[in-house]
Amino acid sequence: MAVTGGHESCGHEAGHHHGYITARENYLRRLRRIEGQARGLQRMVEEEKYCIDILTQISAMTKALESVGLELLDDHMNHCVLAAARSGDDAEAQAKIREASEAIKRLVRS
Amino acid sequence: MAVTGGHESCGHEAGHHHGYITARENYLRRLRRIEGQARGLQRMVEEEKYCIDILTQISAMTKALESVGLELLDDHMNHCVLAAARSGDDAEAQAKIREASEAIKRLVRS
Amino acid sequence: MAVTGGHESCGHEAGHHHGYITARENYLRRLRRIEGQARGLQRMVEEEKYCIDILTQISAMTKALESVGLELLDDHMNHCVLAAARSGDDAEAQAKIREASEAIKRLVRS
Amino acid sequence: MAVTGGHESCGHEAGHHHGYITARENYLRRLRRIEGQARGLQRMVEEEKYCIDILTQISAMTKALESVGLELLDDHMNHCVLAAARSGDDAEAQAKIREASEAIKRLVRS
Repeated sequence: MAVTGGHESCGHEAGHHHGYITARENYLRRLRRIEGQARGLQRMVEEEKYCIDILTQISAMTKALESVGLELLDDHMNHCVLAAARSGDDAEAQAKIREASEAIKRLVRS
Repeated sequence: MAVTGGHESCGHEAGHHHGYITARENYLRRLRRIEGQARGLQRMVEEEKYCIDILTQISAMTKALESVGLELLDDHMNHCVLAAARSGDDAEAQAKIREASEAIKRLVRS
Repeated sequence: MAVTGGHESCGHEAGHHHGYITARENYLRRLRRIEGQARGLQRMVEEEKYCIDILTQISAMTKALESVGLELLDDHMNHCVLAAARSGDDAEAQAKIREASEAIKRLVRS
Repeated sequence: MAVTGGHESCGHEAGHHHGYITARENYLRRLRRIEGQARGLQRMVEEEKYCIDILTQISAMTKALESVGLELLDDHMNHCVLAAARSGDDAEAQAKIREASEAIKRLVRS
């Protein structure tokens, strides 16, 4: 499996690509901040803050969420797609790319 | 203040436009769900779920957040902008519209 | 009709709100540039330019198109919505706002 | 260069990956339609069509443009990224992925 750089996040059995742990901590920290933004928005609504100020927070939160998504996508291509391509399993590599394309479509549309 | 339909969320002193309370409950319920999605994403990262599955959740959360934003914007126009326009205070109405336009720009770009 | 600031672009009979002509020239100039970008993209594809360079042009063209849309929306609110609100015709004003909200939704989603 | 599936659109010297010609015709047809939409928008502005109707066309045109972009991106990954990965040139493959990630960021933000 090493040859496919196999790790759960590539849909393979455990084992980690180099630097994955630190990346994970970085994602968790950002997602915790995003969770905090969601709580902050509830407070703003409860306190009937000005709708425009709430909208500003919503845009900031959306941007933060999208940048996590864009980084995850980059990881997917650098690890899952490359690992499959290197392994010489073209069908697998193309399947990974198809999934990435679908995910990109959802990100662009959302 | 009735003339400007004045309520905190229009940047005026307290007092509520009809139906605002129920709208607020609806926003809070959706924002709590969004907060839950943020926690769910952290769980997925901790459990090293497949990046593509995490991305699917991120797109769903972004859509949910945007739809809250679009509804808040609609409220802003129906209450804050209309109230200012009805009050005959054009400068105020145009200021409210300018704020809305800026918020729309941020939503479209984010 | 003056009271509703009536002009075709607000779905009323002819007559123009101040500065509309200059705004129109500005829109036409930008749309002609966008048409030129569409031709430039065809040239790039015919010459088999690098896909990433074509994508850069597509993003620039999308941004230009969106900024025309955002300005039209701002005009709609400043002229059509305000005119209807000033005329005291609330149903009409709310209808204009509903249309604006639907248009914003399409811009954010696209 | 065959090994890198090299063709201009991958930033390599000429030579075409299978089916590229038909893909190119498909892109050109869609870009010509988009150019037509840009002309149609100018007509609508000249005839002072209702702003909301113009906005509807702008959203349709933006969607058409984005779908061309998403397909080009998919091509880039399936041909340029895979070709580089297969060639065993990891630095090259990672460079192609970096370019793709940057392009995706611009598409999501635009």
